[in-house]
Amino acid sequence: MHRRVGIIGTGSVGTSVAVSTLHAGVASALWLHDLNAARAEGEAMDLAHGAAFYPPCEVRSAMLAEMRECQVVVVAAGRNSRPGETRLDLLRDNARVIATIGQGLAGFGGTVVLVTNPVDVLTLVMQQASGLPPERVLGTGTMLDTARLHQMLGAELGVATQSIHAQVLGEHGDSELVLWSGAQVGGVPLRQWAGWTPEAEARLAHAVRVAAYEVIQRKGATNHAIGLVTARLLQCLLRGERRVLTVSRVQQGACGLHGVALSLPTVVGAGGGVQVLVPQMDATEQAALAHSAQVLQAAAASVAG
Amino acid sequence: MHRRVGIIGTGSVGTSVAVSTLHAGVASALWLHDLNAARAEGEAMDLAHGAAFYPPCEVRSAMLAEMRECQVVVVAAGRNSRPGETRLDLLRDNARVIATIGQGLAGFGGTVVLVTNPVDVLTLVMQQASGLPPERVLGTGTMLDTARLHQMLGAELGVATQSIHAQVLGEHGDSELVLWSGAQVGGVPLRQWAGWTPEAEARLAHAVRVAAYEVIQRKGATNHAIGLVTARLLQCLLRGERRVLTVSRVQQGACGLHGVALSLPTVVGAGGGVQVLVPQMDATEQAALAHSAQVLQAAAASVAG
Amino acid sequence: MHRRVGIIGTGSVGTSVAVSTLHAGVASALWLHDLNAARAEGEAMDLAHGAAFYPPCEVRSAMLAEMRECQVVVVAAGRNSRPGETRLDLLRDNARVIATIGQGLAGFGGTVVLVTNPVDVLTLVMQQASGLPPERVLGTGTMLDTARLHQMLGAELGVATQSIHAQVLGEHGDSELVLWSGAQVGGVPLRQWAGWTPEAEARLAHAVRVAAYEVIQRKGATNHAIGLVTARLLQCLLRGERRVLTVSRVQQGACGLHGVALSLPTVVGAGGGVQVLVPQMDATEQAALAHSAQVLQAAAASVAG
Amino acid sequence: MHRRVGIIGTGSVGTSVAVSTLHAGVASALWLHDLNAARAEGEAMDLAHGAAFYPPCEVRSAMLAEMRECQVVVVAAGRNSRPGETRLDLLRDNARVIATIGQGLAGFGGTVVLVTNPVDVLTLVMQQASGLPPERVLGTGTMLDTARLHQMLGAELGVATQSIHAQVLGEHGDSELVLWSGAQVGGVPLRQWAGWTPEAEARLAHAVRVAAYEVIQRKGATNHAIGLVTARLLQCLLRGERRVLTVSRVQQGACGLHGVALSLPTVVGAGGGVQVLVPQMDATEQAALAHSAQVLQAAAASVAG
Repeated sequence: MHRRVGIIGTGSVGTSVAVSTLHAGVASALWLHDLNAARAEGEAMDLAHGAAFYPPCEVRSAMLAEMRECQVVVVAAGRNSRPGETRLDLLRDNARVIATIGQGLAGFGGTVVLVTNPVDVLTLVMQQASGLPPERVLGTGTMLDTARLHQMLGAELGVATQSIHAQVLGEHGDSELVLWSGAQVGGVPLRQWAGWTPEAEARLAHAVRVAAYEVIQRKGATNHAIGLVTARLLQCLLRGERRVLTVSRVQQGACGLHGVALSLPTVVGAGGGVQVLVPQMDATEQAALAHSAQVLQAAAASVAG
Repeated sequence: MHRRVGIIGTGSVGTSVAVSTLHAGVASALWLHDLNAARAEGEAMDLAHGAAFYPPCEVRSAMLAEMRECQVVVVAAGRNSRPGETRLDLLRDNARVIATIGQGLAGFGGTVVLVTNPVDVLTLVMQQASGLPPERVLGTGTMLDTARLHQMLGAELGVATQSIHAQVLGEHGDSELVLWSGAQVGGVPLRQWAGWTPEAEARLAHAVRVAAYEVIQRKGATNHAIGLVTARLLQCLLRGERRVLTVSRVQQGACGLHGVALSLPTVVGAGGGVQVLVPQMDATEQAALAHSAQVLQAAAASVAG
Repeated sequence: MHRRVGIIGTGSVGTSVAVSTLHAGVASALWLHDLNAARAEGEAMDLAHGAAFYPPCEVRSAMLAEMRECQVVVVAAGRNSRPGETRLDLLRDNARVIATIGQGLAGFGGTVVLVTNPVDVLTLVMQQASGLPPERVLGTGTMLDTARLHQMLGAELGVATQSIHAQVLGEHGDSELVLWSGAQVGGVPLRQWAGWTPEAEARLAHAVRVAAYEVIQRKGATNHAIGLVTARLLQCLLRGERRVLTVSRVQQGACGLHGVALSLPTVVGAGGGVQVLVPQMDATEQAALAHSAQVLQAAAASVAG
Repeated sequence: MHRRVGIIGTGSVGTSVAVSTLHAGVASALWLHDLNAARAEGEAMDLAHGAAFYPPCEVRSAMLAEMRECQVVVVAAGRNSRPGETRLDLLRDNARVIATIGQGLAGFGGTVVLVTNPVDVLTLVMQQASGLPPERVLGTGTMLDTARLHQMLGAELGVATQSIHAQVLGEHGDSELVLWSGAQVGGVPLRQWAGWTPEAEARLAHAVRVAAYEVIQRKGATNHAIGLVTARLLQCLLRGERRVLTVSRVQQGACGLHGVALSLPTVVGAGGGVQVLVPQMDATEQAALAHSAQVLQAAAASVAG
């Protein structure tokens, strides 16, 4: 009955994943690892001291080798993006870190969740380095962008976040796309919503795309929302929920894509991102997805080269 | 900061609403009333004895007059349907009960939630008897049918209940309709889902329509699912969530309907069912909705007459 | 990662256990069995229809043989007590039922939770019939009485239920005893609380002792509180929480008791009621516990004879 | 039905309070303020982006003047302790900050929760500067130390954190005291627990006392546990739970203490820390409490002077 989660990298993102996972109550153990062993130990102690206030969970620091005993390993290692740089600027530094971790996870029996940015290319790097099947190497991808879209659209329309049905696909980054054509609220296509305009689409898509930049400009990093998003992904994996989430994974044919990691709607269950769905898209959206895939393939090539 | 819920009628439905509401932790007080005062008192005692196991809430029996101090009053009075009878068979007996309760709620400042069947006609009866604005007299309507559809579709497709986007509208009863044309999962229109067939639509629509009969045949009543559904509705009202729910209310123009109570997608917030949405429907669905409205108008006329 | 709970007996108690267990979100599967197979099926359908409103859990009816695949099996079979009869009156009827179920559970690898009354003698009957080790056959015992005491004391003192530290031990029935000598609130011994009197002790002990009778007189049965209590016990077993609960089990030496099932404070973890604690008791309490054990031994003898 | 929480100071502690409060689902609005307005705005954006994953709550940055519209205002402003310095070293710097905030809260109708260290003296500073009644100016005090004690004792004894009944009182700092004489588990006085020794008491008391230092040494600050603790305190205030918590407040006679702020077991409800309890203490504990009060009075004098 063990449900063990390992987190590699206990910076502000890794620890935000940790605290939201503890609140969600879905793990029976939470093991923290960091290159800075003292830091991981300190974070584990701080979290454990609050044990009276979340469902039972063993929180402790762990060695890298112990990660293999987990059902899910979250990789939040590497550095954050900095004001002014794009997500792809981070790539070279973090790819090396992720490849090393991935080689250590070869033969791992659970699912790896990538959080480090640029998350899509690193998901590919992790999958290749670890040799794990693509459905068991998931990036948080556009789950965060989708969450931001729901929050902003809900506020715009005066409707609860949970009642918004819309998705952001492709790269977690500048080339991402919103599936406006299929977005709906309570069975009302968004494009039929009273007062809805193309201008609103452009404005919201932009707001989602630059949300991380806006936060980073103000506080230097993002961590809370990605922590909440990742905890939900862990919940789906550990409980085998089979929810549809816009996770990133190496694609094997869906929407005609091969060998590139990006987000499509995906059924996430105990075995990982086990079924990729092909959503309805209009011509503009199809082109935007193809473009996003090209951007990511180029970025991947720049590392491999 | 009070969030008081009153329940009138503490049979198996009323008490299932109570226990799910306590677990949801959204009420600060839960007051129970029944014609059989001892019964309401016994139920309140039984629920209060478990206080250590749900968030703090004052549970006690109450007089009818005290219901006016609540933010929401749930009406689950009247008798259940019996094996073999249609929901409309219940009408005459329960309409008298509801009208009397409604007269007592004239001038009430909160929202009334009707659970008693046939829920649509009784929602109209309650609204007319109480004189409250239509947005503050809500029937659970097809929320239950929608929940059943999500559960059955989820099982059919191998996808989490929470990821199914589909709605049942119209009467909570034989003339209800499923909005198949707009149903989707992860942006995939259901009608484009691999292997989906008209046969599956007919089979599932039938399964939803007869679900209550199937349960009643086996255990004599239904109570758990309607309790869970109603607790969610109370949560939306008390927290002002503005979720879109398929509640029943007296319509004032949406989809061309006037003066009949039935379910359409509705934004439910602190002020009740404040905004009725007009979902996209194909011609078959429009006709089915019109038919459902006619059935309900005839039923209403049979009581008024 | 399976956490399967089986429930044998789907009357009002068994289904209250079911609904509170679903809300608690601690089981991945909930399988219902009843001699009346249709009833179990109907209850499972009714609960499953509300799947959108509780954490993911497979709810279905099951055959008796399938119970062996569960981590915990709750036994709520047998009939309820009736107005006017003592808990021991039920004994002969229910002992036969429990012994038969127990024989079928011989070699079971999980924990059996007895809820049927009189729960202490039936816990012994189950342990003997199944041959399972005593720590894996637990009765809900005085967990319910302890919960009632906390609720009543909390109301009396104006303090949250969760801040009351006091226990009811011995028989779940007329010979039970409250450990007043060790009861405390925030480090204040209850007997030093301003205004506390021996009269209050007698009054509250009586109120706890007759609480079930009072509820039964008003509504014909008790079910909600025992459902909530049992869900908490299941949570401790499934999560391996190691909370101290006043469960009933066959004692093997604690407080000098052997071969009788009754409630003492017990650490409940993944392996069942694994450690029985010996609380501080004054002479009156020691005598009352000895008396309670004698009452239960006599009752057990009356069945065995 | 508003339940608004304001947080002044959005460093790592303030934002940890925020995220745990959102998970707890007890606030309908969470307003963040910081001297660095951009930072508060960035934190609010980051938290709001995850709205899909916690119960509905309006999260936004706010001006200082808006704090008066909240039911509870958390003050986490001021700087953290640094490696090597005692909690009292912080005093002079932070007292000025708190006094200014307190003057702005004169006439406030809700409760102020102090988190900034050294929390006890600053609770006194806040109470005097604001002129609010002592029961409505609460410091988190030894709630955190008590939580740490429960966690460590639970691990030591192999018992769930929730089943440990023990308290840390006095200063949140070096002069704090553990009430070993009244500590118990399941009715077993800790001093009668098999294998318990005076050495264990000294070791655990020391571990609790230096816990913050140990964490700070490893990660440079503490934030998660204090966030979880404060969220629980907010829950008690907003729901009027009347739990007994070891909060700090200016004492008005309990245990013979006047005019000094420190932690004693206190009933916390909608009106604040409304009832201070006088726990049973042995002579050593009474002396230690008196000493702790003297330490704090001296510290307070050093600021006032």
